[in-house]
Amino acid sequence: MSKTIALIARHNTVGIENVLKELVSALFEQGHTLYFENDTAQHIQRDGVLAGIEALNVTQIGLNVDVAIVLGGDGTMLGIARQLASFDVPLIGINMGRLGFMTDISRDRMLPVVLEILAGNYKSERRSMLEGRVLRNDEAIFFGLAVNDVVVARGSGAGMVELRVDVEDHFMYNQRSDGLILATPTGSTAYSLSAGGPLMHPSLNGIVLVPIAPHALSNRPIVVPDACEILIEVVNGRDISINFDMQTFTSLMPRDRVSIKRSQHTVTFLHPVDWSFYDTLRHKLHWNEMPSSDKH
Amino acid sequence: MSKTIALIARHNTVGIENVLKELVSALFEQGHTLYFENDTAQHIQRDGVLAGIEALNVTQIGLNVDVAIVLGGDGTMLGIARQLASFDVPLIGINMGRLGFMTDISRDRMLPVVLEILAGNYKSERRSMLEGRVLRNDEAIFFGLAVNDVVVARGSGAGMVELRVDVEDHFMYNQRSDGLILATPTGSTAYSLSAGGPLMHPSLNGIVLVPIAPHALSNRPIVVPDACEILIEVVNGRDISINFDMQTFTSLMPRDRVSIKRSQHTVTFLHPVDWSFYDTLRHKLHWNEMPSSDKH
Amino acid sequence: MSKTIALIARHNTVGIENVLKELVSALFEQGHTLYFENDTAQHIQRDGVLAGIEALNVTQIGLNVDVAIVLGGDGTMLGIARQLASFDVPLIGINMGRLGFMTDISRDRMLPVVLEILAGNYKSERRSMLEGRVLRNDEAIFFGLAVNDVVVARGSGAGMVELRVDVEDHFMYNQRSDGLILATPTGSTAYSLSAGGPLMHPSLNGIVLVPIAPHALSNRPIVVPDACEILIEVVNGRDISINFDMQTFTSLMPRDRVSIKRSQHTVTFLHPVDWSFYDTLRHKLHWNEMPSSDKH
Amino acid sequence: MSKTIALIARHNTVGIENVLKELVSALFEQGHTLYFENDTAQHIQRDGVLAGIEALNVTQIGLNVDVAIVLGGDGTMLGIARQLASFDVPLIGINMGRLGFMTDISRDRMLPVVLEILAGNYKSERRSMLEGRVLRNDEAIFFGLAVNDVVVARGSGAGMVELRVDVEDHFMYNQRSDGLILATPTGSTAYSLSAGGPLMHPSLNGIVLVPIAPHALSNRPIVVPDACEILIEVVNGRDISINFDMQTFTSLMPRDRVSIKRSQHTVTFLHPVDWSFYDTLRHKLHWNEMPSSDKH
Repeated sequence: MSKTIALIARHNTVGIENVLKELVSALFEQGHTLYFENDTAQHIQRDGVLAGIEALNVTQIGLNVDVAIVLGGDGTMLGIARQLASFDVPLIGINMGRLGFMTDISRDRMLPVVLEILAGNYKSERRSMLEGRVLRNDEAIFFGLAVNDVVVARGSGAGMVELRVDVEDHFMYNQRSDGLILATPTGSTAYSLSAGGPLMHPSLNGIVLVPIAPHALSNRPIVVPDACEILIEVVNGRDISINFDMQTFTSLMPRDRVSIKRSQHTVTFLHPVDWSFYDTLRHKLHWNEMPSSDKH
Repeated sequence: MSKTIALIARHNTVGIENVLKELVSALFEQGHTLYFENDTAQHIQRDGVLAGIEALNVTQIGLNVDVAIVLGGDGTMLGIARQLASFDVPLIGINMGRLGFMTDISRDRMLPVVLEILAGNYKSERRSMLEGRVLRNDEAIFFGLAVNDVVVARGSGAGMVELRVDVEDHFMYNQRSDGLILATPTGSTAYSLSAGGPLMHPSLNGIVLVPIAPHALSNRPIVVPDACEILIEVVNGRDISINFDMQTFTSLMPRDRVSIKRSQHTVTFLHPVDWSFYDTLRHKLHWNEMPSSDKH
Repeated sequence: MSKTIALIARHNTVGIENVLKELVSALFEQGHTLYFENDTAQHIQRDGVLAGIEALNVTQIGLNVDVAIVLGGDGTMLGIARQLASFDVPLIGINMGRLGFMTDISRDRMLPVVLEILAGNYKSERRSMLEGRVLRNDEAIFFGLAVNDVVVARGSGAGMVELRVDVEDHFMYNQRSDGLILATPTGSTAYSLSAGGPLMHPSLNGIVLVPIAPHALSNRPIVVPDACEILIEVVNGRDISINFDMQTFTSLMPRDRVSIKRSQHTVTFLHPVDWSFYDTLRHKLHWNEMPSSDKH
Repeated sequence: MSKTIALIARHNTVGIENVLKELVSALFEQGHTLYFENDTAQHIQRDGVLAGIEALNVTQIGLNVDVAIVLGGDGTMLGIARQLASFDVPLIGINMGRLGFMTDISRDRMLPVVLEILAGNYKSERRSMLEGRVLRNDEAIFFGLAVNDVVVARGSGAGMVELRVDVEDHFMYNQRSDGLILATPTGSTAYSLSAGGPLMHPSLNGIVLVPIAPHALSNRPIVVPDACEILIEVVNGRDISINFDMQTFTSLMPRDRVSIKRSQHTVTFLHPVDWSFYDTLRHKLHWNEMPSSDKH
């Protein structure tokens, strides 16, 4: 049961070649077929066991591989996951430093865990994505996909933005703020959290809307079912933009509307069988750092 | 298609008899069969058109009526909804003052709206409930149902409580705080909101865990799927109790465990066809009170 | 005891001329000498009793008048207060619509209250201001004054900004966020409040630092004595700017430093004798809108 | 310049006798006169160099010693600081485990730092305290002192409490909540922080009022000058109590009023000369644990 595997690695990570060599040797030994993602291939030193591995672009990877292994941080994973979204290639994430929400396998445990997963012992997890369409005069002028979040926000030199929000054809509110974050459960641990949003388990069918510094104190984060279409209209404001995972951007003008809904695509992560979202949360949020002996 | 209808009204509401007479006359005219809930029957003046209506206890109501009409506030509705939980009697809520989250029909619109709903034109909505079991030495010593929330909290004269929380057999954290709220989407607009929890659309399959004044600043509200069993163990603390909707209580001791999960029962509300959760939110949270002309 | 009085009015306010005429007639009757601020003079229709009133620029006002009367909203007051800062001209604020934090006299009560204040019966209140100096390679390249707040923030198309903050030569932290607000007590009811800052009584000798959507959940608002110099260094980030009361802006680059401290200047408001900051808060924040009968 | 020094140590701390012996030997060598606080004397093993040291009660300590050295955590320090409040004895705090806000000297650095402080090289810092008087039918029935906070709160089995708050004879609001915290700057890092209050530098002349889980979302923390008298009246609620530093308690009934103001007493801490409040904050709140390389 040998597999075709793509390797994506964060550039400029000291020692990444050594980690790749270690991984590649083990994978070759198991009879797997390996490819580098183009960008990775161009930025790493490919000698020794890495020398003969061909490079594919993202579309080729999407069409041809069984699984992709990502070495880096959550940023690296976020980038490739967005690009591979329409191909449904399962992803394995190895962090090159600190534990990530999406890169959950430590370098120390890399070999045994990856081999175990490739042998079929894993916990598979589907993460929902958002897609957004910008409408100007009812014409779609921009389209984007997000693993974490879609953010409509003002520039630093502009005053508040006023947004009208409708959910599934029901008017929700006009809100004035620095902007609005729409986050998937995956994104609930990222920017949304900083802006006051709740944590959400990845399997939850919800989207959270988190206003950034809202004028009205009762404009609190709200979780809506992800089967809803959310419509955001720019009522007022200057220097407004929309971004998807902070990776693709476009400018918005008053009267532009943005339609956001769950994408038909998902991201699939393969975790070790003992993986738990709560373990990751506890570790990342330092939930156990304040021992019991402390007084309030 | 005449129906058997139970009437539940808040006691001590000035003028409630007049409202009931108006409603009863209209319902009799449509050929419906009416009963008072026992407690209501005992506390209101039953003259005129109200005189001949018999009273039933909650169990009789649960077994015999097609629908129950509740006149009062959200507190009145909460009380009867909990008691009727196992019978699946649909509920219609008429508020006797200000708009409620669950009593969404104003007295002004009462007659046409109620008749319209009874004629079959309504939006039906199922709300999930929680059930909790208190275990002492692995023996169940208390059982409760909640429409809004289950709360484990310390008394005012005691220090912090330390709780261990596991979700679906995964350890989440030990948290030290004044207590922990577990709220349904219905309860997300109540106590949970005051303690910093997110709003949640009623159709969402989630439970939110909201720590009350947690010692660790990263102990943020977290939404978990309502298919999960949540296990809370009292690790430390004095004068601790658990309550269900602030209506039933019991004391907890260190090493007691509480198992909380979605109840098999639900509450069904019948709303007018133009009802929207977002309208209610906007009204209750004064979302539109700050007009656009205001500066930040 | 006739006084020399400047009149500043918000442009484009329907009916402002009638209000001015009413006020001017009453002030002339008391023997006061009146001037329009230049900008006001150019934008209003000056017929009738307004015709003969001369216009002064802000410096002339600062040097020559005893008191300035401002008709408009908090935005109008903010603008002129900043410009008059170095002259210590007391300000009387009449709101042309809804009650403001700084324009606390309603149009209804205008005449009796203004005459009473000019007759010497008032509550005088000094508000502290902030001044900021932008240093590039240790050279001051920008200077600004703020009544409400100084804000260092990223643009909408850039990632987080990393700022190093030192207070009175003590390192406080490096924080990563959308930006940092430094607000006076006066500004504590404005942008700072939206971003999670506390309310502060105007007489408090404090400056509040409020991070905007901080990455670290423990980066909470902190109030420091306003005798401190606060030094902010841009460690990382793109498209960063600093603004003073959202009215003057400049761009910042990595390694720029901003030195912020209490200005030697203050703003003096003259209030009616029965004025209370808490009355204004209660009104503006709708503190009494939820009556006692509501359930949690 | 030998001094008379009291020693207060946390009971039941493993190894506390060894630490005391080390400290006592060094202090004797410098010619200081030492006393144990009574309670400490009774709970520790007094052999060796500890054997001959006499014990004093708190009043005797207050009247006779030049300085008190506290070994333990912030809880130990809080307890003795409250008791010594009226005597103005300066306090030196040595933490027996993790760094405390008030016990800022680590066991490792104990000897050189304590000797340095006793030699006159220190940073002295005065902390304000609160005093509260409970009035029933205008008669004072209880009096308390607080270093951290005064808390009026409901019991776990009761609904919301409604409190009326007046500041310096100005009505502020009626608030419904779980309770209200009034914290000194010292207390701003304790319970107040958990309930959403701001951090405050210890030298700030302010008291922060922090509602616990308030019903109205606009009932935000507010900092008022500590020269104010704050009057809290219990309007509604059951099972309400007031506590001072969670150490002394009494029950409150509807119509009881509590008058709270800055105490004439203060607590004086002696810190090493390089001590900084911001260093302690940064350490205790883990402000530097999220390195720059992390993505939002």
